[in-house]
Amino acid sequence: MSTVLLEARMATVAAAVEVELAALLPAAEGAQARLNEAMRYAALGGGKRLRPFLVAATAELFGITGAAPIRVGAAVELIHAYSLVHDDLPAMDDAALRRGRPSCHRAFDEATAILAGDALQALAFEVLARDDYGADPGQRCRLVRKLAEASGALGMCGGQMIDLLAERQELTVAEITTLQRLKTGAIIGFSCEAGAVLGRAGSAETEALRGYAHDLGLAFQIKDDLLDLEGDSAVTGKDSGRDSEVGKATFVRRLGVAGARAKLEELRRSALGRLDIFGDSARVLGQLFAFVIDRRS
Amino acid sequence: MSTVLLEARMATVAAAVEVELAALLPAAEGAQARLNEAMRYAALGGGKRLRPFLVAATAELFGITGAAPIRVGAAVELIHAYSLVHDDLPAMDDAALRRGRPSCHRAFDEATAILAGDALQALAFEVLARDDYGADPGQRCRLVRKLAEASGALGMCGGQMIDLLAERQELTVAEITTLQRLKTGAIIGFSCEAGAVLGRAGSAETEALRGYAHDLGLAFQIKDDLLDLEGDSAVTGKDSGRDSEVGKATFVRRLGVAGARAKLEELRRSALGRLDIFGDSARVLGQLFAFVIDRRS
Repeated sequence: MSTVLLEARMATVAAAVEVELAALLPAAEGAQARLNEAMRYAALGGGKRLRPFLVAATAELFGITGAAPIRVGAAVELIHAYSLVHDDLPAMDDAALRRGRPSCHRAFDEATAILAGDALQALAFEVLARDDYGADPGQRCRLVRKLAEASGALGMCGGQMIDLLAERQELTVAEITTLQRLKTGAIIGFSCEAGAVLGRAGSAETEALRGYAHDLGLAFQIKDDLLDLEGDSAVTGKDSGRDSEVGKATFVRRLGVAGARAKLEELRRSALGRLDIFGDSARVLGQLFAFVIDRRS
Repeated sequence: MSTVLLEARMATVAAAVEVELAALLPAAEGAQARLNEAMRYAALGGGKRLRPFLVAATAELFGITGAAPIRVGAAVELIHAYSLVHDDLPAMDDAALRRGRPSCHRAFDEATAILAGDALQALAFEVLARDDYGADPGQRCRLVRKLAEASGALGMCGGQMIDLLAERQELTVAEITTLQRLKTGAIIGFSCEAGAVLGRAGSAETEALRGYAHDLGLAFQIKDDLLDLEGDSAVTGKDSGRDSEVGKATFVRRLGVAGARAKLEELRRSALGRLDIFGDSARVLGQLFAFVIDRRS
């Protein structure tokens, strides 16, 4: 499959998830309309929807298409959106912009943004638990539990905590790996494993998808670091990773640019190896890996 | 049953929930130990555990005792704890104290408190979805869905949004009723309905418990308002509700003290009527209502 075809498939999933989210999010009406409006602002119109695509692509390995992967993808995006709203708050990263628009607390206010994040999280679990998308109760419970684990204290929230603490101290490569495995890796891991849950995969296949997700999550982060560096270089004229990333725990800072690129290549080989068990049907996941490490933004 | 017996039963449930929470909350260890510590600080050692008692008392109407009501009660308390942590934040109520101790963001810091609230919410849904407390997958999905609805944009978060907006404008009694029905009533409603879910109650019994919860939630709030007023009077020497409650939407402010007391009596009669369907076995819920409206703090 060519990159153009991959991007077309990603766009198709993204469009379906957008429609699903628009229907699942509360309409901006009623006495609390401002809250609902902030939730829609934060969750709609955003990004490449990489995580839902992982749900759809892994579910398809087991012949599962239709409503279920889109619903699960929408739930993941609700969690992703809430985490961005809270990460952008003044007490956290204090970001004024998100996806080229004012961040949620700038567009509304801080209290509304805190509540919108909270309500987006609740909505994610609500829509996973509902019986209207073709998953049985056992599958829905597993999805709720796994998404909660991936986003909670031993997943995304824990990673964010370590990231905040890291601003005060140097981390080793092993510690940065732990940080990223929790902060971004856990939700990517959920997205891949969700396909296995929907497809009632055996343990070998589930394990293979976990391994792929691990490699992909790490590669995603290393590529992000490299892009940050290149972005900074263009703007600041600096070419030293050390100066431009002071106070941030990044792989590039620890491994250097050449080391980071070598690590990407190592992860690519590992990820493709994990997919062997699925044969030709996993080609889209291989392409996706290449897409992630070759992207320019 | 005497009030002393009721209080002993409440203390028994509270103790069991405390043990359950201590086991469910992540240990304060690992690189993100600070987050886990803040979660434990916020969720342990707190309050009368009224909501878990409602779960236990309504489940017992259907002969359900043991692990399930305690687990569900713990999940409700995790949601309650997260909402208090976020409500106390500087951008919200900016409260320095909670239950006589520094609020979470004062004891730790703002970023940690935001993350702790987020992770407590995730944990609530995780522990409800697990298969280790005797509820079947269908029941667990219903509990997750209902708790998410009760705490989300059309429940607790929505009520908190209306409360924030109300600081800028006068609300009518009908609007205050809506606000409280969402802000505190929805979670009280979940706590009562959870017993019906665990007990596989019929629709008449479920409806009766919903009605009881509605009356109880409103009475709880009106009593809170009356206690606030008496507290203020003792401290400030004022005896005017209008002056001491400027900017807050309260029933007492709208109805006056006499009107609020009459409303409490009306709610008591209504609540007891709702319990008729259960006969003698609902006596503890009747006693609880009296306990809530007669309490001194």
